Amino acid sequence: MSFVVSRTADAGGRRGCLTLPHGVVETPVFMPVGTAATVKAVPQETLESLGQDGAGAQIILANTYHLYLRPGHDLIRRMGGVHRFMSWTRPMLTDSGGFQVFSLAKLRKITPDGVEFRSHLDGSKHFFSPEHSIAVQIALGADVIMAFDECVEHPASYDRTRDSMALTHAWARRSADYFLQHRDEVPWAADFSGQRQSLFGIVQGGMYPDLRRQSAEALVEMDLPGYAIGGLAVGEPREMTRDIIAQTLEWLPKDKPRYVMGVGYPDEIEVYAKLGVDMMDCVLPTRAGRHGLVFARLEGEVIRLNIKKVEFAGDAGPIDAKCACTVCARYSRAYLRHLFSSGEPLAATLLSVHNLAFYLDTMARVRRELAPSLSSVNDLHPTVG
Amino acid sequence: MSFVVSRTADAGGRRGCLTLPHGVVETPVFMPVGTAATVKAVPQETLESLGQDGAGAQIILANTYHLYLRPGHDLIRRMGGVHRFMSWTRPMLTDSGGFQVFSLAKLRKITPDGVEFRSHLDGSKHFFSPEHSIAVQIALGADVIMAFDECVEHPASYDRTRDSMALTHAWARRSADYFLQHRDEVPWAADFSGQRQSLFGIVQGGMYPDLRRQSAEALVEMDLPGYAIGGLAVGEPREMTRDIIAQTLEWLPKDKPRYVMGVGYPDEIEVYAKLGVDMMDCVLPTRAGRHGLVFARLEGEVIRLNIKKVEFAGDAGPIDAKCACTVCARYSRAYLRHLFSSGEPLAATLLSVHNLAFYLDTMARVRRELAPSLSSVNDLHPTVG
Repeated sequence: MSFVVSRTADAGGRRGCLTLPHGVVETPVFMPVGTAATVKAVPQETLESLGQDGAGAQIILANTYHLYLRPGHDLIRRMGGVHRFMSWTRPMLTDSGGFQVFSLAKLRKITPDGVEFRSHLDGSKHFFSPEHSIAVQIALGADVIMAFDECVEHPASYDRTRDSMALTHAWARRSADYFLQHRDEVPWAADFSGQRQSLFGIVQGGMYPDLRRQSAEALVEMDLPGYAIGGLAVGEPREMTRDIIAQTLEWLPKDKPRYVMGVGYPDEIEVYAKLGVDMMDCVLPTRAGRHGLVFARLEGEVIRLNIKKVEFAGDAGPIDAKCACTVCARYSRAYLRHLFSSGEPLAATLLSVHNLAFYLDTMARVRRELAPSLSSVNDLHPTVG
Repeated sequence: MSFVVSRTADAGGRRGCLTLPHGVVETPVFMPVGTAATVKAVPQETLESLGQDGAGAQIILANTYHLYLRPGHDLIRRMGGVHRFMSWTRPMLTDSGGFQVFSLAKLRKITPDGVEFRSHLDGSKHFFSPEHSIAVQIALGADVIMAFDECVEHPASYDRTRDSMALTHAWARRSADYFLQHRDEVPWAADFSGQRQSLFGIVQGGMYPDLRRQSAEALVEMDLPGYAIGGLAVGEPREMTRDIIAQTLEWLPKDKPRYVMGVGYPDEIEVYAKLGVDMMDCVLPTRAGRHGLVFARLEGEVIRLNIKKVEFAGDAGPIDAKCACTVCARYSRAYLRHLFSSGEPLAATLLSVHNLAFYLDTMARVRRELAPSLSSVNDLHPTVG
């Protein structure tokens, strides 16, 4: 992995280039979430050409918890890893499974060693330790993998947050130790000789700036290739998310990618990118799409339309007249409303495609604004090393 | 509309060319069903490029009953007709609504004047007469529309079938009369000057050859531009379907398109096309796809695979190694099984795309076999008149 920052704006936002085994990612980047090795309702060939520039998603996520339960990481390893399994040749990132264990699984029991939980699918009993999370992520073979962490609920007391953070740090060390010993077991090792997965650490510390600082410092000491800011967008007010991100960025190295997990609305990801966040992911564009909610711009402001509304029943215009996506080029609000109201599966596909394109176009514009002189994609690509 | 038969094989199968206001259709043709102005789970841009030759679906169906109830034919008329509403520029065909009234609606009450029924969506009361069916179909504006008919259940007695057939004939005359008076009201009249919708008649008569003959003769006397054979694939054995089709074709004019409604399996549509059927439609490729059933060939025979089966869990091969569709080119049985087992919406899309391509490729091959010397599509196209 290499990460090169080409230009940093006064406000901290920077344009960069992340080179991973499966390809090059221009940053700041928004990463669509492909929970179960599929970005819900969107074919891979569509993902590859999304957005105004037709360049598509540069990198997508998959969820370790979901793939571990179904179809199982051993199966995916035998199929050559998650890229080959889902036929996605570009970079991927997996989370540690921690967040889903804490939000989806049942009857969790946390010990210093790990988390025992029951599957949300069938109630079966499982145990995730830092070592097991990394073993699963090596089997899946994403380009970037995440240390196993605990994410506290919001609000959480200072003491609870501090103890949880300490557990996260201990688990990060165990994640890194296990990864160091097993990183050559990735299923595509032979296809990308000399290249490896990259393990990122996750800064926790809840809504307490001094804990965030402690957490950042503890992880930076481990000298990992990239750092995420976790435990945000868990119900706190927008301003608090922004403040925690702005402060935490100060304590993270400027020459490594900085990733905020699970954010946000289109206007939020723009703000965070301009603060200096390099990577973000969120289920919002696809989840909103499946619920009939689409993003658009009205006089420069991001608005959210509910396509179900009767006012769109005879509306021959596109979702967003200024959007260059394939959905806005072809389909009317009236037709999309009809599909959604009729429970037609095409609704989820088309509304998700628009929302994803809206997110990717937002980030492409932010990249241009951060470095207007770098007009071509190729200007940014360093030699792969 | 023009219909030109280029070559007829000894067994009766013929290769032809049907020119409609929205484009040219090479026959024999399979028409995917777009029930509610959407071929379920498949985007229009994908429909346009389906199949080995990348030519896509030449013509698709929409269901009058469904669109009448939701979003309503008046809305679709205001939007410029169903082509513009769903952004499909190629030819379309609508059925009369009769079949759905008899199969889906509740509390039907049939009188010589028409059918009173309650919506399967909300229980609201509606009345379809031949005149109303044609009025709705003119508002929708498909290139080919169908006379309002009654389709008897199977098995049905001779007397019941004969009486129902007589009603169908009376309704066909009323359909044609209404159409003659109102055919210039189609919403795209101004865009295609001098061109019109074409009203096809529907031969009924159940499983009784003498009634089929009576029905064909009565309709042929009306001199309609094309004829359908309805009331098949309602539960009768395969051989009976085939025999009724073969016999009925004898009584229909050779210079007009002949359409068998609602059939069939891929091997069946091949047989019927080779008997001389020019047009067929069926929900099977998409409905089967949504249920995890996919078509393939094994040593030349059509087989049906249930993608759910555990034997496919680790199968890295495509659905059909000889299929040239985008799904077989990219995705493994293992991945498709995973999507289906996980309830992922992408499963319905990909399995439907494969099945539709399988049907379209079957018909493309049958067309080549019927007229091997006509290598180019353009050889077949007469001057639009």
